[in-house]
Amino acid sequence: MDLAEQHVHFQPFGRKTEAKKGKTLLQLANDAGVSIESICGSAGKCGKCKVVVRSGAFALSAPNESELKILGDSARVSNVRLACQATIRTPSRIVIEVPEESRRGHHRLLAAGVEPKRVLKPAMKKVLLKIPPATLKDLRADDDRLLDALGKQASARASIHPGVHAHIPGAMREKGWVATVTLYRGREVIKVEPGDTTNDSFGVAADIGTTKVVAYLIDLRSGETVATESMPNPQIPFGEDLMSRISYTVREKDGAQKLQAVIVEGLNSLISRLCEQKGVEHESILEVIVVGNTAMHHLFFGIPAQHVAAAPYAPAVRTSLTTSPEHVGMRMYRFGKVSSLPNIAGFVGADAVADLVSSGLYNDKKIGMMIDIGTNTEIIAGNEKRLLSCSCASGPAFEGAHIRFGMRAATGAIERVWIDPVTKDVRLRTVDDAPPRGICGSGIVDAISELSRAGLLDASGRLVDTRDMKDVRKAKAGGLEFVVARSKDTGMGEDITIGQHDIQEIQLAKAAIFTGVSILMAKLNVGCSNIARVYAAGAFGTYVDAASAINIGMYPDVPVERIRFIGNAAGSGARMALKSTDARDLAESLSRKVEYVELAAEPGFQNEFAQAMFLPHRDLSRFPNHGKAKPRQ
Amino acid sequence: MDLAEQHVHFQPFGRKTEAKKGKTLLQLANDAGVSIESICGSAGKCGKCKVVVRSGAFALSAPNESELKILGDSARVSNVRLACQATIRTPSRIVIEVPEESRRGHHRLLAAGVEPKRVLKPAMKKVLLKIPPATLKDLRADDDRLLDALGKQASARASIHPGVHAHIPGAMREKGWVATVTLYRGREVIKVEPGDTTNDSFGVAADIGTTKVVAYLIDLRSGETVATESMPNPQIPFGEDLMSRISYTVREKDGAQKLQAVIVEGLNSLISRLCEQKGVEHESILEVIVVGNTAMHHLFFGIPAQHVAAAPYAPAVRTSLTTSPEHVGMRMYRFGKVSSLPNIAGFVGADAVADLVSSGLYNDKKIGMMIDIGTNTEIIAGNEKRLLSCSCASGPAFEGAHIRFGMRAATGAIERVWIDPVTKDVRLRTVDDAPPRGICGSGIVDAISELSRAGLLDASGRLVDTRDMKDVRKAKAGGLEFVVARSKDTGMGEDITIGQHDIQEIQLAKAAIFTGVSILMAKLNVGCSNIARVYAAGAFGTYVDAASAINIGMYPDVPVERIRFIGNAAGSGARMALKSTDARDLAESLSRKVEYVELAAEPGFQNEFAQAMFLPHRDLSRFPNHGKAKPRQ
Repeated sequence: MDLAEQHVHFQPFGRKTEAKKGKTLLQLANDAGVSIESICGSAGKCGKCKVVVRSGAFALSAPNESELKILGDSARVSNVRLACQATIRTPSRIVIEVPEESRRGHHRLLAAGVEPKRVLKPAMKKVLLKIPPATLKDLRADDDRLLDALGKQASARASIHPGVHAHIPGAMREKGWVATVTLYRGREVIKVEPGDTTNDSFGVAADIGTTKVVAYLIDLRSGETVATESMPNPQIPFGEDLMSRISYTVREKDGAQKLQAVIVEGLNSLISRLCEQKGVEHESILEVIVVGNTAMHHLFFGIPAQHVAAAPYAPAVRTSLTTSPEHVGMRMYRFGKVSSLPNIAGFVGADAVADLVSSGLYNDKKIGMMIDIGTNTEIIAGNEKRLLSCSCASGPAFEGAHIRFGMRAATGAIERVWIDPVTKDVRLRTVDDAPPRGICGSGIVDAISELSRAGLLDASGRLVDTRDMKDVRKAKAGGLEFVVARSKDTGMGEDITIGQHDIQEIQLAKAAIFTGVSILMAKLNVGCSNIARVYAAGAFGTYVDAASAINIGMYPDVPVERIRFIGNAAGSGARMALKSTDARDLAESLSRKVEYVELAAEPGFQNEFAQAMFLPHRDLSRFPNHGKAKPRQ
Repeated sequence: MDLAEQHVHFQPFGRKTEAKKGKTLLQLANDAGVSIESICGSAGKCGKCKVVVRSGAFALSAPNESELKILGDSARVSNVRLACQATIRTPSRIVIEVPEESRRGHHRLLAAGVEPKRVLKPAMKKVLLKIPPATLKDLRADDDRLLDALGKQASARASIHPGVHAHIPGAMREKGWVATVTLYRGREVIKVEPGDTTNDSFGVAADIGTTKVVAYLIDLRSGETVATESMPNPQIPFGEDLMSRISYTVREKDGAQKLQAVIVEGLNSLISRLCEQKGVEHESILEVIVVGNTAMHHLFFGIPAQHVAAAPYAPAVRTSLTTSPEHVGMRMYRFGKVSSLPNIAGFVGADAVADLVSSGLYNDKKIGMMIDIGTNTEIIAGNEKRLLSCSCASGPAFEGAHIRFGMRAATGAIERVWIDPVTKDVRLRTVDDAPPRGICGSGIVDAISELSRAGLLDASGRLVDTRDMKDVRKAKAGGLEFVVARSKDTGMGEDITIGQHDIQEIQLAKAAIFTGVSILMAKLNVGCSNIARVYAAGAFGTYVDAASAINIGMYPDVPVERIRFIGNAAGSGARMALKSTDARDLAESLSRKVEYVELAAEPGFQNEFAQAMFLPHRDLSRFPNHGKAKPRQ
C-alpha cells in the first residue's frame, strides 16, 4: 500500500493524520486537530467519544470490554467505536466519521458573576522611587538605601524578600537610580525593576472546579478583568468526582503528586493562554489567587486530602494559605505569591467562601440562603448574625453525567423544555440554537418539572402512560421513556429521550440538595416563607429555571422573585480577593464564623433524604405553592 | 608491558594507583589516598604541590609554562614537577616521591574562641503537644486544631509555614495525636513530627572565610558544640583572594552561580561530615547561620558582589538575611532556615559583626580595638558610645602566600622564632614539633621582630650584613637572606630562608593594618596609651606573638597584657547567634550603629601607609616602647 495512504481520515472535517500503530483514534483526532468529546479522560467510561468507522475497520483493535458494555451490539454491527479505546493495529487507510454529538462544542462559559463594587486595594502595589546614588560620601548598603527611599517616598516600612536582594544592585543602577518597587501588603518588597514599570501589574484569579478550571487575568492597576480562559479539570482522567480522585491518591504511589502536577500544569497553561491573549509576560503576573473545594484546594497545594474523605472529614487546612510560586510550581513572577481563600470544612471549601463573599449574604438582616450546585453542592444559610453551612453529595447528573443523553451546556444541548399542559406539545431551546444533540442539566430539570405539571410524571418519579401522549413510549430497555427530540430533528440518527433511570438520577441529586436545605432551615428554626433571598450560584444555578427547580423540589418553595442569580460567584469572590485585601480579610473572618453542619451526622438525615426523593417532596406542606409557578419563556 | 605494572607509585607511602591517561598526578594521589598540599585549587600557581619524579618521567606531559615559572630549571634538571600540572601521557610504571613539605599536614584548627556565657534562647524550639483527636463532635480543621493546642499548651500564637501543612495530618495521627512542633522565633511552625522528638534539635553555625570554611554542629537543646569540621574554601580555584573571585563573577558567564554552587556544596559536605560524625540526620538540622566577609556573604546567597569591589564599595545587603534552604541549596531540614548576621560595609562583613558580638567591645566603657587579621583585616574601635570600623587590604602573606617558604600553620610549620640578641643563636618551634618544612605567619612575624631586636634588620626592612652572623647570607637571587632552618634539620634537602622579598611582603601587610589602626585612632582622637584593650581575633591573631606584632609595628604600642586573644571570634559569634536570638538582635543593632570609615577615601591614607612601611614606623613617637617587650617563650 502506498505509505502516503496510511492515514486516518476524519469526516466530515476532511482532516487526516498518519495512522500510527498503537495510538487511539482519540489521540489521532487530537493530532489532526479534530475535537472529540471525552469527559472520563479516555477511561472508556463516559461513552461520549462514539465514532463510526466508515472504512478500514479491520485495521483497528477489536472492541474491548468497556466498548461492549457501553455500545452493545452496535460496536460490531454498526462499526460504532469509542475513539478513546479503538487502537490502530495495522497502519492503513481508515475513514472515521465523527457524529455531531461526539464533537466537543464550544462550552458555554460562565465567566461573569455578580461582583459588588469595592475599593481597589490589591495586595501587590507598585511604587516608583528616585533613589539617591551611592557615593563615597553616602556609603549606605543597597538594601538600606532602597528601604530608606521607600520609607521617605512611600511611607512604607518594609522588609525585602530574600530572593530579591540579588536583583537590587542592578535594578537601581540600570536606569539612573530610578526603580519600581513592588510591595506585597505594604510590608514586603517582592520585586525591584529598573525604571518606571508601574503600568505593568497583573494577577490571576482561578476557580478550580472538580470539572472545570476558569482563570481570569486582572489588571491590578485598573481592577479590570482583561481576559478569561477555561479548561476541563485535567485531573478528570484520574477520577471524575473528587472522591475517586482522593482514592487515587491513597491507592497509587505518588498519586497525590501526579494530581498536583496535572492541575498545576493545567493552571500554568491557562496562565500562558491569558498572557498570550493580552501580550503580558509571565514575569508580570505578581499574584495568583485560587479557590476550589477543599479537596481541589488540598490537591493543588500538595496537602494530603484523604482525611477529607473519611469521617470525621476534617480538612488538613482551614486558614488561607500564601506560598511561593516555586513551592507549587506556578510559572509566574518567581518571588510573587500564590494564595488561596480559606476553607470552612472538608466539603465546604474556599469556593464556598468566595461564593459567600460575593453574594453579600453575610450582610443580610433577614435570612438568606446561598446554593452553589455542583458535583458537591454547598449551601450556606443565615444572616449577619449567624451562618450555617453544609455540603450535599449531589453528584454529576446536572453536568450530564450518568444521564443517557446527558451532556454539558455546549452547542446543541437542550437547555430549556416546555410542555403545554393541555396539548402536551413539546417546545425546546438548545444552546446556540443548534440542532439538538443531547440534554444538559437545566433542560432535564425543565423536562421533569414540565412532565410533572402536565400530569405525565407522578410524585414518585414514574412516567405515566396516558396513551394519548405520543411522546411517552415504552423504552427498549423496559419501562417508559419521554422522547424529548425526534431523530428527524436531531440530525443524530436517533431520538433524544429521558428514561426512568435518568429521572431517578435527577431525583437523587435534587434530594441530596433539598436535604441540606431542610436541615439548615430546621437548625435556623425557619420555614421557606422566612427565606428572604436565595442566592443561586454557579453555571447550573444560573441557567436552571427557578420555577422548575422549585417545582421538582430542589430549591425551597419561595416566590421566584426572591431567587437571585449570582453566576460564577466562586470566580467573582476570587477576583474580589485578588483586587482587595479587605475581601481576603473578610473571607478569613467569615471562614471562622460560618458553622459547619455535617449532614451525615444529623439524626434526621436518612428520613429527610427519603422524603426529598419525591417530586417535589413527600411532605407537600413544604411546597404549598407546588405547580403554581411557571417556567420562564 | 605488564598491565598490572601501569601504576603510579607514591613514595614513601608505598601507595599505588592505576596510571590513567589524562589524569594529573594530584588527582591520582587523591585516588591513592595520598594527601598533597594545594592551595590554588590545581591552578598551578601556589607551587605547594611539588613532587619529584623518580622513575617514568617520559610518561608524563612536558613541564608547562606554570611549572617553568614556579620551578625554573629544577623542573627539567631535578625532575621536580607540580603534581597539579603533570599529566599522564602514556600509562606506565611511574614512581613519585612526595617530599614532606608537599604533604598536606593536619591543619591546626582554631575552633575554640572566647564565647561569653549567655542564656540559651535559640530561634528554633521544640514543643511537645497532646492534641484532642478529630471526631464528628469536634470537626476543626487540622491546622486550627494544631494551633489551638499550641496556644493552650505553649501559649504560642503562631502561623504555619506553607510547606508544613502537607505533613500535619499524618504527623498528628501517626502516634495517637501526640506530636512535636518546631517553632521558629515563637511565631512560625516549621515542622510537625509524630510523637516526642524534643531531644532531636540541631543547628549549624558556619564561618565562611576567604581561605577556610569552619562549621560547628550545635545541639540546640543543650547549647553544646558537639562537632566541628573545616575545609579550605572551595572557591579558591576561582581566585585566591576575594577581589579575584569577584572579578571572576564579572568576567565569566554564570561565574557567580558557579561560585555559589561550590561554596554551598562545600558547606553541604561539611554538614554531612558533622552529621556522620554524630549520627545526626540531615532532617534534624533546623537552622544554619553563616558569617563571612561581605563578598563571601553575597556569593553564598547568590547576590551580585561586583559593586563591593568598585568605589564607593557599597554592599548590596546590610540587613540580616533569612531564607529557605531551598533558595540557597542547603541539604538540611527542608523548611528550616538559613540565616546570616548583618554586614556593615563592603569590606566589613557579617564576620566582623560576629567578632564584635563575641568580643564584648560594644559594652566597654574605655576605648578598645578589635583586630581580625586575614586577607582582609577588619578593625573595629571605640566603646559603648561609638564604634568605628574599617577594612585593610593586608593580603594573604600571613597565610603563607607569596612567601617563598610560607605555609599555613600545619604540621612542620615554623610557628615561633627566637634570636638571642647577643649570641644570635636561632631557636625554633614547629607545629606538632615536626621537622620544619616551611614557615607560617606567626613564625615570620617573630623572625622579623627578632632580627630587628638583634640588630640584623634595619628600620626600612633591609637585612644587615654583619659578617659575624652566619645565618644572614647572600641569596642566590641577589640581596641577603636569613636562614631560619638548615637543610640538615629540615629533612627537605634544602634550607628554609627568609629573603628581602618575603620581608617586604610582611611590611606591606602590617603597614596596611597599622594604617587602619592609625586612622581609627585619629578619628576617635585617641593615642595608643588610651587603648585599654586590643581584642586579637582569628587564627593568626591568636598564634602570633603579641610582643612581636607590636615590635614590627602591626599592633598599636600597648602593654602586652592589654591584648586579649579571642580566637575564632567570627565562629563564636555565629554560634552565639545560633543559640540566642538576643545575639542576633544585638548584631542587627550593632551593624546599624557601627560607622564605617572608607580608608581609601581618607586624605591621610597614602602618607600613613608610607610611614607604616617602616619597622615599626617612621614616626617612632607612635612606638615609645619599641624593642622593650620580649616575645613569649
